[in-house]
Amino acid sequence: MNTVTQVPLSELASSARSAFVLDQWYVAAFAWELQDKPMARTLLNQSVVLFRTPDGAVGALEDRCCHRSLPLSCGTVEGGGLRCGYHGMLYAPGGSCIEIPGQERIPAKARVKSYVVAEKNHIVWIWMPKEEGAAPSKPAPDYAWHDDARYRFGGGVYHYDAPYQLIHDNLLDLSHVGYVHQKTIGGNPRVHMTAGMEVGGEGDTVRIVRLLPDTLPPPAYTAVWPFKGGIDRWQEIEFEPNHIRIWAGATDKDSEPLDDPQRGGLHLRGFHGLTPETETTSHYFWTMSANSHPEMPDNLDKVLQQIRSTFDEDRVVIEAQYANMRRFGEAASWVDIHVDAGGIRARRIIERLRKQGE
Amino acid sequence: MNTVTQVPLSELASSARSAFVLDQWYVAAFAWELQDKPMARTLLNQSVVLFRTPDGAVGALEDRCCHRSLPLSCGTVEGGGLRCGYHGMLYAPGGSCIEIPGQERIPAKARVKSYVVAEKNHIVWIWMPKEEGAAPSKPAPDYAWHDDARYRFGGGVYHYDAPYQLIHDNLLDLSHVGYVHQKTIGGNPRVHMTAGMEVGGEGDTVRIVRLLPDTLPPPAYTAVWPFKGGIDRWQEIEFEPNHIRIWAGATDKDSEPLDDPQRGGLHLRGFHGLTPETETTSHYFWTMSANSHPEMPDNLDKVLQQIRSTFDEDRVVIEAQYANMRRFGEAASWVDIHVDAGGIRARRIIERLRKQGE
Amino acid sequence: MNTVTQVPLSELASSARSAFVLDQWYVAAFAWELQDKPMARTLLNQSVVLFRTPDGAVGALEDRCCHRSLPLSCGTVEGGGLRCGYHGMLYAPGGSCIEIPGQERIPAKARVKSYVVAEKNHIVWIWMPKEEGAAPSKPAPDYAWHDDARYRFGGGVYHYDAPYQLIHDNLLDLSHVGYVHQKTIGGNPRVHMTAGMEVGGEGDTVRIVRLLPDTLPPPAYTAVWPFKGGIDRWQEIEFEPNHIRIWAGATDKDSEPLDDPQRGGLHLRGFHGLTPETETTSHYFWTMSANSHPEMPDNLDKVLQQIRSTFDEDRVVIEAQYANMRRFGEAASWVDIHVDAGGIRARRIIERLRKQGE
Repeated sequence: MNTVTQVPLSELASSARSAFVLDQWYVAAFAWELQDKPMARTLLNQSVVLFRTPDGAVGALEDRCCHRSLPLSCGTVEGGGLRCGYHGMLYAPGGSCIEIPGQERIPAKARVKSYVVAEKNHIVWIWMPKEEGAAPSKPAPDYAWHDDARYRFGGGVYHYDAPYQLIHDNLLDLSHVGYVHQKTIGGNPRVHMTAGMEVGGEGDTVRIVRLLPDTLPPPAYTAVWPFKGGIDRWQEIEFEPNHIRIWAGATDKDSEPLDDPQRGGLHLRGFHGLTPETETTSHYFWTMSANSHPEMPDNLDKVLQQIRSTFDEDRVVIEAQYANMRRFGEAASWVDIHVDAGGIRARRIIERLRKQGE
Repeated sequence: MNTVTQVPLSELASSARSAFVLDQWYVAAFAWELQDKPMARTLLNQSVVLFRTPDGAVGALEDRCCHRSLPLSCGTVEGGGLRCGYHGMLYAPGGSCIEIPGQERIPAKARVKSYVVAEKNHIVWIWMPKEEGAAPSKPAPDYAWHDDARYRFGGGVYHYDAPYQLIHDNLLDLSHVGYVHQKTIGGNPRVHMTAGMEVGGEGDTVRIVRLLPDTLPPPAYTAVWPFKGGIDRWQEIEFEPNHIRIWAGATDKDSEPLDDPQRGGLHLRGFHGLTPETETTSHYFWTMSANSHPEMPDNLDKVLQQIRSTFDEDRVVIEAQYANMRRFGEAASWVDIHVDAGGIRARRIIERLRKQGE
Repeated sequence: MNTVTQVPLSELASSARSAFVLDQWYVAAFAWELQDKPMARTLLNQSVVLFRTPDGAVGALEDRCCHRSLPLSCGTVEGGGLRCGYHGMLYAPGGSCIEIPGQERIPAKARVKSYVVAEKNHIVWIWMPKEEGAAPSKPAPDYAWHDDARYRFGGGVYHYDAPYQLIHDNLLDLSHVGYVHQKTIGGNPRVHMTAGMEVGGEGDTVRIVRLLPDTLPPPAYTAVWPFKGGIDRWQEIEFEPNHIRIWAGATDKDSEPLDDPQRGGLHLRGFHGLTPETETTSHYFWTMSANSHPEMPDNLDKVLQQIRSTFDEDRVVIEAQYANMRRFGEAASWVDIHVDAGGIRARRIIERLRKQGE
C-alpha cells in the first residue's frame, strides 16, 4: 500500500469514543498480580475487583458494595469470598451477599455483578459480554509459550494515557523503531523504513511478516546470542482484537530456512495484551519469552532490560501523540503513508466488531 | 429497624446536590485558628474570610475586594478592619469600605457582604441565613464541656473530599468500628454489630444510646484509666443538623448506675462539627474532651493520639466511598441494613429542613 | 479620573473570553531560548513549535505532524528543517513535508501551517494573522535598548494562570507598589497612591507619566547608583497592545531637567511582552535594561534580583485575583477608583481592536 488517503480523525477515533468490542476476552491481570489482597482495575469503563481466594481460584466482581458503595477492593479476602471493609458484608465469588453481620435475613437484592474469568498460561482473562451475565461463546486464548520449556519469560503492566488503538498502530508498524528507539535498539532508520513487508491475515486477524536476510546483528542481539557473523532476521506480527503476538529472531546467515517453524537461532516472542481502561486510557500487559544458547544461559535479564527501555520510549511518544490529538481536536485529519497498512487493517476489524455490538 | 429497603442513591444525594440547610449556625473555625492573619474558608459554597481584629473580635466577610476581586484573605488586619493587599482598600467588620487610599470620596457600592459570627466555648459559629443580611433567629449552640473544669480537650480540623452527610452516616453508625478500625480500636467486630441500640430523638435531633454492661475494657481504655477489671460501657450519640456529640465512657462493673448523669469513671466527650464546604466536600471540626483519674493525670495526649488514628481511617473509607459513588453514578442504589436506622433518620431531618428553605 | 463607575465583570472579561487581537505581532520567545532543540509554545490558543535551523534562521510551525499527530516539538532539527520523532517525516520551515522515509511520492496534503517570525533586538516576534497565511501588514516592533551600548540587560519568561489583561492592569497602575511590594521596593504606600499622574496616548497606545521631584531615593536605587542626597524621579509607561515599556529612573535633585530625554542619572528600562497563551493563561516576557555609573559598574545583577522578587509578588497577587474572579463568576462586578484610568483606557483599545477582527 503506497497510496495516501486523507482519513478524518473523527472516524479513526469513533470506535474508541463510542464503545468497545464486546463478547470478547480481555487480559484482566497476570496471574502473579493476584496474591492475598483484592485488586481494583477498571476494564472497558467497568470498575472491577479481582481477587484470589485461599483455594487459589480467581474471582471478579463489580467493585462496589451494594450497601453503601465502598469499593470491595478496600475489603479483605476470606475463604468464602470477599468481605467489605466498612460494615463487613461478605460476598461469594458469584456476587451474592452471603453474610450481613448482626442481621439474619439477607435480602435478594444484596448482590453485585460478577464476571467470568479464566486463568490460563499465567494470564487472567476476563469475558466482557454484550448482555450482562451471558456465558462466554468461546474459550479464552491460548498462549503456550509461557509454559514452553524452551523459553523463559518476564513482563509487566503499563498504564497508558491514550486509547488502546494507538498502541495497536504502534505495534503494527515497526518502522517507527528507527526514530523512536534511536537511542536504544534503533540502528539505521532507513533499513526499518524500507524493509519488505507482507500484510495479510484472515477473519479478525492481521498478520505482518518482514524478512531481513543477510544483515548484521544489532548489538541487542549479539549481547544475548553468540552469532558468528551475518544473520537472517525475521519479524512476524499477529494481531487479534484483544492481544498482539510479535515473533522476532535471527539465525546465522544461510544456516536454516526462514520458513521452517522449527528453525534454530535466537527466538524472541512478545505478548502484548491491550485492554481498554476507558475510552481514553489503556492497560498494556506485556511479556517477552526468550530462548537461550547453552553458552549464554542467563540472557533473559538483558533482554527484559532492553525491552523495558524501548517500551518507555513508546509510551512517551504515544501519550504525547494522544495529548496532541486532544489539543487539536477532531477537525485535524491524518495523512496516511505506506507503513500504515497494518494499523489501518486492524482499525477496520475493531470497527466492524464494535458495530456488531450495537 | 430490621427491614431492608432499596433507596435510590439519587434521592439520598439530592439534599447534598441541590442546596444546604440555611437559617442555621455552622462551625466556621475554632477560636485558636484565628490569630493575627486573615483566613480564607469556603462554607456552604460561599468564599468567606475570617479574621480577628486587634481588640479580639471576630469578623467574617465575603472574601473578595469589590475593586478588583483580590481575595481579602490576601490582605492584612488592622484596628479598623481588613485592608486589601492590592490597592489598600480598608473594610470595616460590617463590610463597608472605609478608606480608599488617594481618593476622598467612597462610593456607596464600595462594600462587601458580611456574616454574623458568634464565638462561644472556643468555637466560632457563623449564621448562614436564607435571606442575605437576615439576623439569626436563635442563639448559637452551647458546648459547655470545652469550659468545664473536669475536662481537658484537644482537637483539629479535617478536610474531606466527600459530602458532609456521609460523615453523618459514619458517626451515627458505630457498628463500622469493628471493620474500619480493626487495626486500632476495633476489637471483635461482632460485638459492635450485635450490641443493643436504641434510636430516638425529638424535633430536629437524633439520639442513639448503646449500653454494653459487663464487658472487658479495650486496650485504649486501660491505657488512660485504671479500671480494676470488668466494666460497664456506654455510647450516646446526639445528632443536630450542624454538629454531632458523642458521649462514650465506662465505669468499673456494677460500681455506678448507667442512668445517672453524674456517674463516675472515664468520660470521653466528642464534638463533631460538620460544615459543608461545597456540595461534594466538607470541613470536619472535632474535639475530644476527657476527664482524668488522679493516678493518670496526663491521659489526654494518649486519647488524642488514638482519636487521630481512627479519624484518619474513617477519612480513607469515606473518601473512597464517595469516589466510588461518583464512579458508579446515580443509577447505583443502596441496600439498607439494620445499622442504618440512625443515619436514615438524620437524612430525613436534613431533607425536611432543606426543603423549608426552598 | 476620579469618578466611580460600576463595570460588570462580564464586559471586562469579554475580550479575553471571545477572541484575541489578531493581525498583530506578539512576542513568541527570546532569541536565547532557541538553541539546538525545538520548543513547544501555545500562543493565542495555537500550538506552535519554534526552532532554529543550523544556519541560524528561526522557524515556527503548527506543532503537529500531519501523519499521526505527534507534536513536531518532539522531533529534531536538521539542515532542511524539522523531522518528526515518530516516523521521520521532514518539514521545511515553510511547512511543506519534503521527505517521507521509505516512500518516494509526497502528497500535496502533507504539510502543516507555518507562521511568519521576525528576530529583532534579541526578541522573536510572531505575526498572528486574521486570515491564515496572510503576510504582516507592518514591521515587528523595535526595541533598540537591547542593542544600546549604554545599557546592559537581562530578563526571563513567566507563565501566568491569568488572562493577559490582568497583567496590563497591574503594569498600568503602579499605585499597587506600596501594598503588593511592601516587603521589597514598596516604601510608604501613600506616596505611590497620591503621586501626580498624567494619562494620555494616541491611537492604540496609552502613555502614563508620573514625576516625583524632590524625594528620597529608595534603598533599591542607592544600592545601584551613587546618589548624593535628594533625587528627582520619573516613571513613564507606554502601552501597546502587544507589549508595555516602563522607563523609570532618577537624577540628583535639580541636576538635570526632567523633560530632557538625554538627561543623566540612573535609567531603568523595562520591557514587558504580554502574549496570551489561552483565554485564561499568559506568557510574560520581560527584560530590564540598566545603565551603570563608572563607580558601580556591576549593578545589573542587583537590579535583576530586585526585579525578580517584585515580579514574583505580582504573580502571586494576579493569579489569586484571577482564581477569585473564577470563583465568584461573572455576576460579581468591579468598583473603579482613580488609579484605574490607565488600565481602563488600555482595555478599551484591546476591545476596539478585537472587534475589528470579528
